[in-house]
Amino acid sequence: MKKNAFYAQSGGVTAVINASACGVIETARSHRDRIGKVYAGRNGIIGALTEDLIDTSKESKSAIAGLRHTPSGAFGSCRFKLKSLEESRAQYERLIEVFKAHNIGYFFYNGGGDSADTCLKVSQLSKIMNYDLKAIHIPKTVDNDLPVTDNCPGFGSVAKYIAISTLEASFDVASMARTSTKVFVLEVMGRHAGWIAAAGGLASTEEHPLPIIILFPEVAFDEKRFLDAVRKKVEQFGYVSIVVSEGVRTAEGSFLAEAGTRDAFGHAQLGGVAPVVAGIVKNALGYKYHWAVADYLQRAARHIASKTDVEQAYDVGKAAVELALKGRNAVMPAIKRTSLQPYRWKIEEAPLSKVANVEKMMPKNFISRDGFNITRRCRDYLEPLIRGEEYPPYRGGLPRYVTLRNIAVPRKLETEVTLESLTA
Amino acid sequence: MKKNAFYAQSGGVTAVINASACGVIETARSHRDRIGKVYAGRNGIIGALTEDLIDTSKESKSAIAGLRHTPSGAFGSCRFKLKSLEESRAQYERLIEVFKAHNIGYFFYNGGGDSADTCLKVSQLSKIMNYDLKAIHIPKTVDNDLPVTDNCPGFGSVAKYIAISTLEASFDVASMARTSTKVFVLEVMGRHAGWIAAAGGLASTEEHPLPIIILFPEVAFDEKRFLDAVRKKVEQFGYVSIVVSEGVRTAEGSFLAEAGTRDAFGHAQLGGVAPVVAGIVKNALGYKYHWAVADYLQRAARHIASKTDVEQAYDVGKAAVELALKGRNAVMPAIKRTSLQPYRWKIEEAPLSKVANVEKMMPKNFISRDGFNITRRCRDYLEPLIRGEEYPPYRGGLPRYVTLRNIAVPRKLETEVTLESLTA
Repeated sequence: MKKNAFYAQSGGVTAVINASACGVIETARSHRDRIGKVYAGRNGIIGALTEDLIDTSKESKSAIAGLRHTPSGAFGSCRFKLKSLEESRAQYERLIEVFKAHNIGYFFYNGGGDSADTCLKVSQLSKIMNYDLKAIHIPKTVDNDLPVTDNCPGFGSVAKYIAISTLEASFDVASMARTSTKVFVLEVMGRHAGWIAAAGGLASTEEHPLPIIILFPEVAFDEKRFLDAVRKKVEQFGYVSIVVSEGVRTAEGSFLAEAGTRDAFGHAQLGGVAPVVAGIVKNALGYKYHWAVADYLQRAARHIASKTDVEQAYDVGKAAVELALKGRNAVMPAIKRTSLQPYRWKIEEAPLSKVANVEKMMPKNFISRDGFNITRRCRDYLEPLIRGEEYPPYRGGLPRYVTLRNIAVPRKLETEVTLESLTA
Repeated sequence: MKKNAFYAQSGGVTAVINASACGVIETARSHRDRIGKVYAGRNGIIGALTEDLIDTSKESKSAIAGLRHTPSGAFGSCRFKLKSLEESRAQYERLIEVFKAHNIGYFFYNGGGDSADTCLKVSQLSKIMNYDLKAIHIPKTVDNDLPVTDNCPGFGSVAKYIAISTLEASFDVASMARTSTKVFVLEVMGRHAGWIAAAGGLASTEEHPLPIIILFPEVAFDEKRFLDAVRKKVEQFGYVSIVVSEGVRTAEGSFLAEAGTRDAFGHAQLGGVAPVVAGIVKNALGYKYHWAVADYLQRAARHIASKTDVEQAYDVGKAAVELALKGRNAVMPAIKRTSLQPYRWKIEEAPLSKVANVEKMMPKNFISRDGFNITRRCRDYLEPLIRGEEYPPYRGGLPRYVTLRNIAVPRKLETEVTLESLTA
């Protein structure tokens, strides 16, 4: 029997999460015999809970194709985590109720570790409730911290942005260093894992070595050793570029910069470690500095997305639909690296029980012995992920990003659930 | 008689100042009958004062061609301002002495208002000292604040970067706003003139309007009116993007964020107004926010340079050599807009006396009545300047920027002048 599909975007958006949406919708459209319509959650899973569904069949072929080159979440995302089955049973049941009302047989949830966990629980509850549902998780996170998969769609483009920004800023500082700025500090995302910070290390190559110091969340900040490293680089090269992860902590475990607020997942919201690091250098060594905080710019920068990343993002969306059509449930399409030189990859399925709630940290041998740089092994891992350019089309100097019509599916249920009641 | 040329880069570097260097050197090389070698100042004018010249004839044709797509200052720049002829007479005389020793008959100085002033004074002193020198200033400044010329090479690429970043970040925030971030603040450069901040307004078009608020240095910050505008945008669109110039001041004239240090030109070094603005919003309205500080990333972003900007940067370099060969002196090639629709421009010469020490502010009719946006007129002015993409070549996911060999010209003078003695 022909069933509809439900697709939702979860958590922080990326430059390529819409490429996954494009993969899902285009693949579903090519299987009209088995999949009816693809409904999307307006603002992620809360769209399902509040029965605010978007009918993607109202979007033109070219609009859907345009998602491939459009950053951010075209249907809206959300920071809203369903708790355990015990604590949030009513919300899980509401999801199934909405799915039932709209004849939804396929659930595609596009997000990170938290949404993999939700996807798994929805799958479990649908079994308990005897509701036939194929729940597939589609990996997405700039943090690259999902297990099993070799890398996460979304990460490669951030890594490319950070590598290029570090390269360009280093060229800038090198020009100015004789009489002016000698230290440039770039703050990047990454709460617990230093994957994004590591990408800054790619700016320096054997052919063109650049003085770069990376501060990883995995390495406790040691002010004296750090200042020694800064001084040495400036003495040798005339300047230094410092890439600092927002999640850097002291040996005592406190964040070097803590904004003090928390998001809906209970994670501390960080920001502003760059000026702290710049200040430490200025006070101890007196060097003139500049600092930048990339923040959302790094994850939204579709204009310089990695071609590898765009392709993988599309393909995990496509594979998710194909897995569902094969009757698979509670799985995630994962990227497996099959060859390093030349880089080759394929998609395998991973059981969600192995994905949910596991955070993949940087391997120890990816960080140099002194703790301030990446190793050859790390470089070999990262480099293929930033490879290739897939530029969006432009008009009048600006990328032509797509804005969908996002037409609502008429409500069918009598019970109304509001966002306010969900977050109360 | 065949004379050598001297070229130097001054002040903050840009994504396209090397394109001007490329224009100078390639054009000089095509006039070998009249111009000998092009020497470049290592780290700008201090390279001349310390007799540390770079022999650009040692660079290959492809390396020089590569300057067109390489950001920053390939020979090094500096923040070092020669004072008045009375105060710094010895330094001006030293310049002429170095020029004389190296048979330099052409002086190309690539910079902003301060260097236009220096260029003019060198020209005046050479006349007094009866030394035959053609002194040509080549416009460069991300701030777009030079008079006479319609726009400054370097600005168009920053404007494109800021417009695209504002667009991309706005898409990101729009996705998150329902349950998370509602306010995004992007801090951009611009001490006195709001040209760069204005570029953020380009992200919103009639076809796809986005809720953007711009804080210009030309408009005194009025907290109440600002907060009203923020609240209205969030109520209407669900979110708002705020583009704030580093130079924004209160009605009393103090900077909203003042780092407290000053550069060699005596300008206050600003930075960090984004978190101040975000905090004002958070405290008054409680919206969740994110902020970014683009800093050097915006002026180094050759990866997304404006094609118009690259072409103009190259052409003012080329025109400078051609003006010198025509015997012109104390002039600057200026860009003149000859048609708005379609956009057309040509290069004219401007006397340096009209350029030096004049700062071009945004016209009043470029800022909307409420002070928070740009007008149609401003948009018409800015849009052609960000038009077109001229991507650098890539290898392994990174732009292939050029690093020159920068081989020193053997010293000829007995007197040694050090940087330390110059800045003492």
